[in-house]
Amino acid sequence: MWSPKRIAIAQSGGPTSAINASLVGIYRAAKEWQGIAAQSNITQNAATSDAACEPIVVYGVKHGVQGLLAEQFLDLDTYLTDSEQIALLRKTPATALGSCRYRLPNTEKDAEPYRKIQGVLERNQIDALFYIGGNDSMDTVAKLSAWLETQDSPIRVIGVPKTIDNDLVETDHTPGFGSAVKYLATTMSEIIEDSSVYYVPSVTICEIMGRDAGWLTASTCVLQHNGMAAPHLIYLPEGEMTVSKFLADVRDVLKTHQSVICAVSEGVRLPDAGEYRSGANDAFGHAYLSGVGKYLEEQVRAQIGCKVRAVELNVMQRCSAHLAAETDLAEAEACGAHAFRLAAEGKTGRMAAMQRKPGETYEIVYTDVAAADVANQIRLVPKAWITPEGNGIVDEAVSYFLPLMQGDVPPTMRNGMPVHFRFAE
Amino acid sequence: MWSPKRIAIAQSGGPTSAINASLVGIYRAAKEWQGIAAQSNITQNAATSDAACEPIVVYGVKHGVQGLLAEQFLDLDTYLTDSEQIALLRKTPATALGSCRYRLPNTEKDAEPYRKIQGVLERNQIDALFYIGGNDSMDTVAKLSAWLETQDSPIRVIGVPKTIDNDLVETDHTPGFGSAVKYLATTMSEIIEDSSVYYVPSVTICEIMGRDAGWLTASTCVLQHNGMAAPHLIYLPEGEMTVSKFLADVRDVLKTHQSVICAVSEGVRLPDAGEYRSGANDAFGHAYLSGVGKYLEEQVRAQIGCKVRAVELNVMQRCSAHLAAETDLAEAEACGAHAFRLAAEGKTGRMAAMQRKPGETYEIVYTDVAAADVANQIRLVPKAWITPEGNGIVDEAVSYFLPLMQGDVPPTMRNGMPVHFRFAE
Repeated sequence: MWSPKRIAIAQSGGPTSAINASLVGIYRAAKEWQGIAAQSNITQNAATSDAACEPIVVYGVKHGVQGLLAEQFLDLDTYLTDSEQIALLRKTPATALGSCRYRLPNTEKDAEPYRKIQGVLERNQIDALFYIGGNDSMDTVAKLSAWLETQDSPIRVIGVPKTIDNDLVETDHTPGFGSAVKYLATTMSEIIEDSSVYYVPSVTICEIMGRDAGWLTASTCVLQHNGMAAPHLIYLPEGEMTVSKFLADVRDVLKTHQSVICAVSEGVRLPDAGEYRSGANDAFGHAYLSGVGKYLEEQVRAQIGCKVRAVELNVMQRCSAHLAAETDLAEAEACGAHAFRLAAEGKTGRMAAMQRKPGETYEIVYTDVAAADVANQIRLVPKAWITPEGNGIVDEAVSYFLPLMQGDVPPTMRNGMPVHFRFAE
Repeated sequence: MWSPKRIAIAQSGGPTSAINASLVGIYRAAKEWQGIAAQSNITQNAATSDAACEPIVVYGVKHGVQGLLAEQFLDLDTYLTDSEQIALLRKTPATALGSCRYRLPNTEKDAEPYRKIQGVLERNQIDALFYIGGNDSMDTVAKLSAWLETQDSPIRVIGVPKTIDNDLVETDHTPGFGSAVKYLATTMSEIIEDSSVYYVPSVTICEIMGRDAGWLTASTCVLQHNGMAAPHLIYLPEGEMTVSKFLADVRDVLKTHQSVICAVSEGVRLPDAGEYRSGANDAFGHAYLSGVGKYLEEQVRAQIGCKVRAVELNVMQRCSAHLAAETDLAEAEACGAHAFRLAAEGKTGRMAAMQRKPGETYEIVYTDVAAADVANQIRLVPKAWITPEGNGIVDEAVSYFLPLMQGDVPPTMRNGMPVHFRFAE
């Protein structure tokens, strides 16, 4: 039976509402493992009274690989002193340990960071490193585990998926996504009410995150399931969108709806839009100022001339933990626990993943895949989910999104405001 | 005892999360009054068995004065068939009846709309009109009630305050404001978590509604009450802000905080900012594109050069009913009920208002003021609440804001999404 002395957990990439639930999942699994190990120890040494079992020290690493290189460790037991603190951490948004955007070089090019990390891990007697992140982070898991294997190091490196973008391959979906879907459905349902109060034609353009893949934008189709006609128009980077087609679509919907609601991915390409986002020649960049939502707003104002408003849902869609989906947090935690089990089984260079069982009832099986297969890949929304007109999502997609956003997570409130978990600086 | 046959309720101005609670307040008060009247009828006619009491018909008017002129009435009993529907309407965001931005002319200049409205009210046997709205709406209440009085009409016109801007005079605060404060505190607490994950200096600029008055922006100081240092910088239209002072302030905070959070009112004047918002000569308006947040973002990027992001909280701050404050909804409803009582007392041209009792415990007394005194006035944040540096809010202000945002209002969920009340089209 694996009996690690110390393990370390780091977080990387953009914040989500579920990433700390994965941290809790690994922590709890380690503590449980410690209990099982102690039990097995007692059984084996039944004759002796001092059936010692070293507690597993669980380190949090600050700021991902950067903090690892700088040896910034926290002993989580110091902070997670009771179940309330653990529960609070589980539903706290953004990376509690801090994040980084650091990319390991190829070993052939520069092995120095690898030697350094190996040194840090060995010096601190760390038996396994868990890295919670997206496709860039899985690149780190793949490269670092491969390096350690070539060095005959027994240290295991396991990845835990995380991203609101839902664009990791080899997993049904990613922790963090379901909560973002719930935020979008809730907020857009309210924006739809807000947009329909005046007795004049109006267009509301909601700009949603997703530079390469349109999963989040596509997910707004779930509102149809509650009988809402809006959003009337949905555009993904995977589809083919042009400004002129967009204006024609809006004009068309205006014939039957006074208030037109559009969900537009920040990553849509607009081949006929010119240079609005290039900003090449302008230090004060009109380009940078103008996201696609504002750009399309201007187009509607100039070409159609009706009331129009762009709403950028910005970082709120990734950090609004008060709208987290319990299904998402539970899965994020389960992914963390599964990652620990993978390490216990002696695996390295793997990422915990989710498979959806076929059938009517939503059920997830936890599996694992090679981190190298996930690294730097992007999973796109299937073309078949986009309507032939390129401006909507087919009904079949609703059943994919809907289970992911179920369950509420009431925030812990103090004085009418939510409180969050904080590691002391 | 007043025994109205029919009353009418209209909503006007920008949406809030509490305006429908006021609608419910008037409706419920009318139904209660009907019960009391019936009771008093029975007592008076104890000898006769057919103690008839006509039910009060409560009309909703679609799209404010515009719908009144067009005679667009809904019989609310048709829609509010049970207590569940009423409870759902109470917490539905935005004006359920629809709104308008219509301004009555002066009677001396054009009395035609007044004659028309009087005709509509008389033809429909309406004894009292309730108008829920902000300072423009109180202008309508004042003018229309004055006209009806000069015509010796017994029809009463009563205003019910509403605005997230909290800028009405003669009332301690306005329904709708408390829920917006709760949204801002919650969302900013999450944005603060989101902004602090990377190990690099960063500036986050939250642009908050309030073109003339900075109440909403000022209210973000409540986070201090939960021990948060952020927002580190707060700028109101009532203060004196310049771009160069802003940049100096940011540089200053960056010395001690890695992640600087700024709350900036959309209405701040920036005398040294040039023409960024004028847009006079540009149909595609860089001006219009660029709110103050984006403008300041560009300034930080160009002049300080660190990571920077502007977040516009947009319509979400006025329509996020899933974060409504129960205190706010209860007060909005009580204002509606009080407005009905004012009409029952024979008053007209008055607005229901709130006075805060002095002392430690938060308590509101419902009063009334002349709608004419509220119309077209703007109540500003007291200068004394702004710190001498002009970039913060003094501690004393916290106790003003804090009680207004208390209490949660869980939305009615179906399939993991909130559902809202809708009058059929």
